[in-house]
Amino acid sequence: MAYEVISSEQVFKGKVFSIERDSITLPDGRVAVRETVRHNGAAAMVAIDDDGKILFVRQYRHAAGKETLEIPAGTLEKGEEPYDCAIRELEEETGYKCQKMEFMFKFYSSIGFCSEVLHIYLATGLAKGQANPDDDEFIELERYTPEEAVKMIFSGEICDSKTIASVLAYKNIIDG
Amino acid sequence: MAYEVISSEQVFKGKVFSIERDSITLPDGRVAVRETVRHNGAAAMVAIDDDGKILFVRQYRHAAGKETLEIPAGTLEKGEEPYDCAIRELEEETGYKCQKMEFMFKFYSSIGFCSEVLHIYLATGLAKGQANPDDDEFIELERYTPEEAVKMIFSGEICDSKTIASVLAYKNIIDG
Repeated sequence: MAYEVISSEQVFKGKVFSIERDSITLPDGRVAVRETVRHNGAAAMVAIDDDGKILFVRQYRHAAGKETLEIPAGTLEKGEEPYDCAIRELEEETGYKCQKMEFMFKFYSSIGFCSEVLHIYLATGLAKGQANPDDDEFIELERYTPEEAVKMIFSGEICDSKTIASVLAYKNIIDG
Repeated sequence: MAYEVISSEQVFKGKVFSIERDSITLPDGRVAVRETVRHNGAAAMVAIDDDGKILFVRQYRHAAGKETLEIPAGTLEKGEEPYDCAIRELEEETGYKCQKMEFMFKFYSSIGFCSEVLHIYLATGLAKGQANPDDDEFIELERYTPEEAVKMIFSGEICDSKTIASVLAYKNIIDG
């Protein structure tokens, strides 16, 4: 059978992800090795304020070596539902609660080598709650109209795949 | 100084990526550990045929455990320029050459823990070349209009972040 897993070995165990080295069968019967980042998944949201602006968080990202502008997001805790994670992360990172948190879509962030799935929501009806970022997160809140955000995607100021996919999906929805 | 790297250690070395465990300073002076997937980057393209349809490749992805539909893409070889990688991967994966390969934008696939940058191009003026997929790639070519592709994003049939971001960006461009 094609793409059957013959053997699987965990070769790294980290705080946020682990690495598995698997041997799988190919359609022609040969065996290939696949090294995969195993990640628990995450939730993120396009959160719209009363002026129709999208909420963004600015924070330093070590993987990029710079500050970036992203929609609020966070990793699923063990056993946590994506919806609950989205509700929790919106308030922790932005200080806002929402009346509606609607599922938009989900996708793999790096499908070639990583199992992380991002669950994207649309948050509306924002009301002030209590910001409570993780102990090692230093976050600033910014707001931009959908049109401004799309310009920042093509200018390169927004350079994060989940943010680009989610903002463009929201723009596509409101443009009908 | 905030976000200075105090120490860095490679804790895994794989075929496509490695893992670094770094200690960095936080703005409040404390030290935090960041585990990062270091990846050489990749190029991908929205390739438009003479009928205005977008080229997609269908292939099995071990990280997702299923077949997925994606725009053509590939990892940068050592020292390879993203543009050259895009030209090479378009022909290898789809069998098409192109007259124009224009840079669209670039982004991080998983900015929270991975350094991979995807360089996205718009390929037009397609002409038959010679398909030559990697030894362990089994790929089928499909074509969809931008409108069909957007529907497949919201239905979940397209579930890959680079494909979603790139197709929606192209749709945004052609819609003006």
